[in-house]
Amino acid sequence: MFSLIPSGSITDVPGFSSGAVRAGIKSTGELDLALLFSRVPCVAAGVFTRNRVKSASVILSREHLAIACAQAIVVISGCANACVGERGMVNAVEIVGLVAAKLRISPDDVLLASTGVIGSPLPMVCVRRGIEQIVLKENGGHDMARAMMTTDTVAKEVSLQVRIGDVDITVAGVAKGVGMIHPDMATMLCFVATDALVEADFLREALKRAVAISFNMISVDGDTSTNDCVFLLANGLAGGESINSRNGGVFQEALNEVCIHLAKSMVRDGEGATKLIEVVVERAKNQEEACCAARAVASSLLVKAAVHGSDPNWGRVVAALGRSGAQVKESKLGICLNDVCLMKEGNAIPFDAEKLKLSLKNSDCVVINAELGLGNSGAIAWGCDLSEEYATINSAYTT
Amino acid sequence: MFSLIPSGSITDVPGFSSGAVRAGIKSTGELDLALLFSRVPCVAAGVFTRNRVKSASVILSREHLAIACAQAIVVISGCANACVGERGMVNAVEIVGLVAAKLRISPDDVLLASTGVIGSPLPMVCVRRGIEQIVLKENGGHDMARAMMTTDTVAKEVSLQVRIGDVDITVAGVAKGVGMIHPDMATMLCFVATDALVEADFLREALKRAVAISFNMISVDGDTSTNDCVFLLANGLAGGESINSRNGGVFQEALNEVCIHLAKSMVRDGEGATKLIEVVVERAKNQEEACCAARAVASSLLVKAAVHGSDPNWGRVVAALGRSGAQVKESKLGICLNDVCLMKEGNAIPFDAEKLKLSLKNSDCVVINAELGLGNSGAIAWGCDLSEEYATINSAYTT
Repeated sequence: MFSLIPSGSITDVPGFSSGAVRAGIKSTGELDLALLFSRVPCVAAGVFTRNRVKSASVILSREHLAIACAQAIVVISGCANACVGERGMVNAVEIVGLVAAKLRISPDDVLLASTGVIGSPLPMVCVRRGIEQIVLKENGGHDMARAMMTTDTVAKEVSLQVRIGDVDITVAGVAKGVGMIHPDMATMLCFVATDALVEADFLREALKRAVAISFNMISVDGDTSTNDCVFLLANGLAGGESINSRNGGVFQEALNEVCIHLAKSMVRDGEGATKLIEVVVERAKNQEEACCAARAVASSLLVKAAVHGSDPNWGRVVAALGRSGAQVKESKLGICLNDVCLMKEGNAIPFDAEKLKLSLKNSDCVVINAELGLGNSGAIAWGCDLSEEYATINSAYTT
Repeated sequence: MFSLIPSGSITDVPGFSSGAVRAGIKSTGELDLALLFSRVPCVAAGVFTRNRVKSASVILSREHLAIACAQAIVVISGCANACVGERGMVNAVEIVGLVAAKLRISPDDVLLASTGVIGSPLPMVCVRRGIEQIVLKENGGHDMARAMMTTDTVAKEVSLQVRIGDVDITVAGVAKGVGMIHPDMATMLCFVATDALVEADFLREALKRAVAISFNMISVDGDTSTNDCVFLLANGLAGGESINSRNGGVFQEALNEVCIHLAKSMVRDGEGATKLIEVVVERAKNQEEACCAARAVASSLLVKAAVHGSDPNWGRVVAALGRSGAQVKESKLGICLNDVCLMKEGNAIPFDAEKLKLSLKNSDCVVINAELGLGNSGAIAWGCDLSEEYATINSAYTT
């Protein structure tokens, strides 16, 4: 339905430009400060971390989004601007002001996101110089994607075109985040831009729905960092009829596609991950329970470790379902692993273990199907396998 | 207050005997079937897994405990007797019947616990022969502890004596379980015996309370296996005044001591663990929030990985507290790591990072203190560090 643009970036969207610099915030000397700008004001929406401890960047951006309008996003990588006392907000306000002055827009129309180590104040000398030096380019999207990376090993970006009514619109996104086995610290940031003409109320609802089936399905609910945020900016340059809840079906699907693509690329690049795990729960009692069940399996350490070892240990899937909070009746339960049925209506089904092990070993994406047999709701969650490397990476992060 | 008995075992308790055999249930040929017997009937209580999928062993034992009376426990190691359809209950009933016949007691007075791989039926030929062969010994406790082990590297047992009123009583326990990073499959079993004379209602309440501050503080709530259970048997042979809610304070403390000792020995032997983590939360708004907060930190993968790398990355502690569900105000928050204050009232405190890293490196037990500054409730949770070995062990379990 959608045509993905090969090696697309967020600046594929008409009217958006971007730039990035090496400001010296990351000790590695890589790109670490980026700016995204729309030449006209955008209708905007955001989804933020539910962590009770929030970065000042998150608090400020949420305030700015109260009026559902934005024109620029500034991103800092290497420092979370969290848990630094009042300095956090003082610095956030200064940064937004500097960007506004550079772009000649109101500070209220600038959003700020930051990611990196908690508890260290922003190196403001570097940040100020960086903002001054950034040059916006019409093809600057790839630089922005690179600048956002922390422990990411690949940049995460996608763009697609879709025809809505009489006009072609572009929806593109850029994201970072790899600590997705439990994303409680490895901040997830995602920015989506579009030239579609979208009404503010619908934009907010559409973003919530897209996040619910993408980023929220790669993370156990509540396992949010102090800095997580997703921003969506629509500049309306494509024109045409304005999009709202009555005619927004195709736009919603395009947005879902972009968010799911980015969410999956995060887990695929999960710290130490070698395989994607897709958990498909079917026939749950209701939607909420379907989501719970799928997430519990996708985030179970023991399931992740079994997948890493290509071990068809389906008992771990059953145990995760059983503790997920969803209603589960053993006598109704069915489990498949890479299309091989292992349990049906509560009974183990004999299977060729060696053949299945080989299939798991050769899969980039292991698919786990769980049929609960109690209703008509379904959900899909994604995770990655747990390798020795996860512990190696995470035992040496700040130091 | 309590005198721990050096190299104590559960058969230190007068009136209890135990035995174990190599029945051939474990493929390794180790001890795998054990029996605990009291020569007189006991007042008994149990706490069971909250997993919706339960082993038939758990279901049957819970039924037998409805009358608060038991005289024997039979334990099978190497097979969970879970997710095997109706055969699970048929086999459980046969086992309990065989043990009852051997001991000349009622089947209702026999409890059954099992641990091991899910989805495989019990090898009943081995089990029947094993039950026949078991010889009960007055010093058989250590054998029982060894027979219960699966991936445990050390046996877990403790016994203590305490004077209550005019009589000396013994409380002793034996446990297994090492997959305690998230104990969703690595079944936790624990049996506690005492010769104290205890009233049934109080025994049940005392066990609940002891489990709440011991085994439940090493596991994230709900992360239970299909087979978890804790049994407490009191045979009353010590005599004296009967113990109830009015005079049960010392007994409760002795029981807490035994359960906490066993719980800590589980996390210390956690799969791949090299360090114990003790998380002390103080000044939380209420008891429930104190527990939530302590458990969230103790079970955070990123905290565990940081401790493994001796990395004083206290931002991860803050992020775990923030998502724990407990009320957290950044401006009130204080964090210490091995007695070094890193954050006070929301502000980072400068510290000697090299010195603290060395202290973390040299600690068998890393202590994390979190002061929430919002009330007067506290809780302690225990976890272990996350090493590369965890993934190695858990990616090759069934196969």
